[in-house]
Amino acid sequence: MAILRMGYAHVRVTDLAEARQHYTQTLGLDEVAAVDNKLYLKGWDEWDHHSVVLEEGGVGVVKFGFKVQYEDDIAQIENRAQKFGVTTERVSKGEEFEVGEILRIHSPSGHFFDIYSEITSGQSDVGNVNPEAFPRDLRGIGAPAIDHALITAEDVGQMERFLHDVFGFWTAEKVATTLDPADQHNIAIWTTGTNQIHQLAVLEGPQAKLHHFAFRLEEGWEITRAADIMAMDDVPIDVGPTRHGITRGKTVYFFDPAGNRNEVFAGGYLSFADRPMVTWTPDMIAKGIFYHARELNERFTTVLT
Amino acid sequence: MAILRMGYAHVRVTDLAEARQHYTQTLGLDEVAAVDNKLYLKGWDEWDHHSVVLEEGGVGVVKFGFKVQYEDDIAQIENRAQKFGVTTERVSKGEEFEVGEILRIHSPSGHFFDIYSEITSGQSDVGNVNPEAFPRDLRGIGAPAIDHALITAEDVGQMERFLHDVFGFWTAEKVATTLDPADQHNIAIWTTGTNQIHQLAVLEGPQAKLHHFAFRLEEGWEITRAADIMAMDDVPIDVGPTRHGITRGKTVYFFDPAGNRNEVFAGGYLSFADRPMVTWTPDMIAKGIFYHARELNERFTTVLT
Amino acid sequence: MAILRMGYAHVRVTDLAEARQHYTQTLGLDEVAAVDNKLYLKGWDEWDHHSVVLEEGGVGVVKFGFKVQYEDDIAQIENRAQKFGVTTERVSKGEEFEVGEILRIHSPSGHFFDIYSEITSGQSDVGNVNPEAFPRDLRGIGAPAIDHALITAEDVGQMERFLHDVFGFWTAEKVATTLDPADQHNIAIWTTGTNQIHQLAVLEGPQAKLHHFAFRLEEGWEITRAADIMAMDDVPIDVGPTRHGITRGKTVYFFDPAGNRNEVFAGGYLSFADRPMVTWTPDMIAKGIFYHARELNERFTTVLT
Amino acid sequence: MAILRMGYAHVRVTDLAEARQHYTQTLGLDEVAAVDNKLYLKGWDEWDHHSVVLEEGGVGVVKFGFKVQYEDDIAQIENRAQKFGVTTERVSKGEEFEVGEILRIHSPSGHFFDIYSEITSGQSDVGNVNPEAFPRDLRGIGAPAIDHALITAEDVGQMERFLHDVFGFWTAEKVATTLDPADQHNIAIWTTGTNQIHQLAVLEGPQAKLHHFAFRLEEGWEITRAADIMAMDDVPIDVGPTRHGITRGKTVYFFDPAGNRNEVFAGGYLSFADRPMVTWTPDMIAKGIFYHARELNERFTTVLT
Repeated sequence: MAILRMGYAHVRVTDLAEARQHYTQTLGLDEVAAVDNKLYLKGWDEWDHHSVVLEEGGVGVVKFGFKVQYEDDIAQIENRAQKFGVTTERVSKGEEFEVGEILRIHSPSGHFFDIYSEITSGQSDVGNVNPEAFPRDLRGIGAPAIDHALITAEDVGQMERFLHDVFGFWTAEKVATTLDPADQHNIAIWTTGTNQIHQLAVLEGPQAKLHHFAFRLEEGWEITRAADIMAMDDVPIDVGPTRHGITRGKTVYFFDPAGNRNEVFAGGYLSFADRPMVTWTPDMIAKGIFYHARELNERFTTVLT
Repeated sequence: MAILRMGYAHVRVTDLAEARQHYTQTLGLDEVAAVDNKLYLKGWDEWDHHSVVLEEGGVGVVKFGFKVQYEDDIAQIENRAQKFGVTTERVSKGEEFEVGEILRIHSPSGHFFDIYSEITSGQSDVGNVNPEAFPRDLRGIGAPAIDHALITAEDVGQMERFLHDVFGFWTAEKVATTLDPADQHNIAIWTTGTNQIHQLAVLEGPQAKLHHFAFRLEEGWEITRAADIMAMDDVPIDVGPTRHGITRGKTVYFFDPAGNRNEVFAGGYLSFADRPMVTWTPDMIAKGIFYHARELNERFTTVLT
Repeated sequence: MAILRMGYAHVRVTDLAEARQHYTQTLGLDEVAAVDNKLYLKGWDEWDHHSVVLEEGGVGVVKFGFKVQYEDDIAQIENRAQKFGVTTERVSKGEEFEVGEILRIHSPSGHFFDIYSEITSGQSDVGNVNPEAFPRDLRGIGAPAIDHALITAEDVGQMERFLHDVFGFWTAEKVATTLDPADQHNIAIWTTGTNQIHQLAVLEGPQAKLHHFAFRLEEGWEITRAADIMAMDDVPIDVGPTRHGITRGKTVYFFDPAGNRNEVFAGGYLSFADRPMVTWTPDMIAKGIFYHARELNERFTTVLT
Repeated sequence: MAILRMGYAHVRVTDLAEARQHYTQTLGLDEVAAVDNKLYLKGWDEWDHHSVVLEEGGVGVVKFGFKVQYEDDIAQIENRAQKFGVTTERVSKGEEFEVGEILRIHSPSGHFFDIYSEITSGQSDVGNVNPEAFPRDLRGIGAPAIDHALITAEDVGQMERFLHDVFGFWTAEKVATTLDPADQHNIAIWTTGTNQIHQLAVLEGPQAKLHHFAFRLEEGWEITRAADIMAMDDVPIDVGPTRHGITRGKTVYFFDPAGNRNEVFAGGYLSFADRPMVTWTPDMIAKGIFYHARELNERFTTVLT
């Protein structure tokens, strides 16, 4: 298991004060550090230094971090990336705040992926000795951890090969033009290398864009309560609370003050390398995305940052 | 990731007809095959041929299966097992019904662990094309899949080394006599090699015994509803519904008609290889096991099969 | 407490076979009787003969029944109705299948309200001696009981007076043009005479129309699961699952095969005669109706039957 | 509907500071006033001045308040009480802090019941204009309101007649020695005069004692979360979380620092005057009380204050 998880999302926001309010008071992340025009945040159940970096100036994704367990894993992924034919660069330890040496991959989708094994690390907010089940006084939604992201790319098939060959990910679910593998064009893929039902999903669209990044909650009632908190805090909801057909997870999509789409996501089944891949056909895309409404709103399919 | 998951539990039951009723009608597993004095069962969300084998005659565990992804993984684990110094044997394809060639390891705990990469395989009950979120008409509790087991062993420290060295598992949580690693004696460990918070747990006790094996549910309300179904079906409940401090999962412990302890388990956090291990001290064991009552009943700590 | 509850909804459906499938298999009501072109249904937790009457031919509401406890209550309501100035008629015992003598009120809204104290009565599906918490094998959504209805009327203020003076209902919540009682025009009212947060709600609109009638579920997860079942059964969902600001209840709106709108409704607070009335202002209507999305779809406000 | 609800519980506690911590920080009630050796508290969703009075000195119940809608209701109940043959007294307005004139009934069970229609009144913590669904930042369990109490009495049959004749309550459920009404001796009764499944329950036992008084939550997950908070706050849990067979409600029983038993209670079905009474037989008492475990602990049946 080379890649442990999506370790961080680094996104641009138009106003850092507004973003701080949203991510720390509504989502309930911990503010770990504020350096120059950047905020570093983590969820209460995370032990690495940060999982979200907010950078003032614009909107959209700067890069995603993917953590590996061992330093050797970085070199292994570097080899695979070069073999695949994408550009890579090394970023020295400390250039990325609190993070060790980084392999930065220029993804075929136009995104930057940071591979790292070292980051300043502590413990979750409940600690490691006789911990309580959760912090007694959570703020707002109280999101425990980052979960995954959905990005867009012009060539989803190429990204599937990239994520398979370089990250060791498999496709848990896909939306394809037909069920015939020989003739199949992928419209979207949900990929992972662990039990997490998706670590990175890719949707056909413009290069280098962000559809959303997501935070993990545990149960359906927390999804409903998250939407309640958004109503109280005047956070614009895109869609939800509802269930995905794809992944079976429960969800709310909403926007941060800069217009980046967030998600809170709960449940879904466990992925395994040997589990048969699920395919959705074009006539069932809407049910796959929003299992209850079985229709897509235009905003959901067109607003990217 | 050599070991994908605990693939099957093979247990003895005193009466096959009673056991069939319990496992298929109350737990809601699918009966896949009945051969000689054995029943083969699977959950609705499993794609391998079976995850539970019930064998008439006695009580207790016969063996556990652990599935690996590739045939090569078997040889790798065989090497590690021999290096560790435990007895192993090869079981030819087909000797275990619908399973390929097996590496059978004689665990230091006195249990048998089957390592296999091949088993007759199909799809989950909702299929792989535009699947529904769950089967519309589930029976009883409707358990989707097997999850983990808790066994007893005289030497938990030895089992921790075995599971680490041979299975590649890490200890997610433990109950230890002190917090000082140098002087620490493990009373119980919860180990895994994936995001599942535990694949196998080991409690200090007699060799070769079963404390319980568990089925996965998704949310807390399903745990409550499972207990409701048990009340309707006169299934004896040991403890629950409640929450574990250890793993944070929600749980009901109950008994099959032969007296083997089952569990339904939901939630809990995701484990990662780099997540700091949690340690529970002896004074907090009861809260670790049963977070709400903070006391252990005698039955829970003494009834083994 | 003169009026116990909304006892039945009698609605028209275009096709009885389709409606039977929807109300008994998706909603999970019991079919009690089929007479001529009518089906009589009840929920599993109801003890009166029926709570829903489906009549083939057309669409929309025929009448609502309101049950009172004593025969004397009928005469008392008759007096109040005549004093209010609406037309009433007496319907002899047996004219309405399995119902005793009825006082039929011609509501100012153009609807017919049946007041009755006698109806063939039995017990809920779990019985009255050592009952289980719910029937072990529910069909589909498994709705236990009818709950309330929302109708439209040209003059909501007049309906509020009618429901107050004749039914003894108070307004638990309202949408009003201003907060100034002197200058206030009611756009919608939610009225009740018991702890049920609404027994009948009235929205400004055409006379004699039905917006929806609702079935009661207990918890939020049942609302989500109800939407899951609707997805599996191809039932068109109007809105939800979501929460109402008004009543705080959780909800899914959907359509029966004839196009009548149904709701499943769970939770909400208890109403009391002395509880201060809640007022919603026009700018907050959307949040009052759909607390999460804070926007109304056109279908929801225009489709009536 | 003469009696609206159980309006307040006035109990003794051994230490006011400890009790304040428990009732305001763990249960999450609002402290409204502190006068002499008494604390006055209310839940966030209550509008009357207080629903709990804590009086320093001893343990157990001082009295319960029952609110009626109109001043005339007081005289009506006074007449009924005198006809029944119990002692009553009038307590002048203001003698009970912030409460109007009171009819104090000496119940056959040895308890004092205050009947009142007037109490200083405001609004719930979310207000009456465009209210949020709940206060955004609740403390601890965040109990919205008091719900009911269970008291003991030597003669439960006499109490049933008293509550019927004087309060207008009916028995929703009972535990009786036989199913034969002619020969039936009541061991416990759950009585109400509204949709609340119980306003006051009576168990055979010593006179003038308190088994528990309860706070209302809405859903099962809140019951589990309440038990989590109790674990964090070292509140001793008696039983739960579990479900009652009787009332079907979800529950946790626990103790305040003085040893008075509290309950958080959610769900259960709606009671109606015409709903058939449920009877439990002696062999099923344990399942009726604790539906899952189907056994009673000795503490639950013997600890009274």
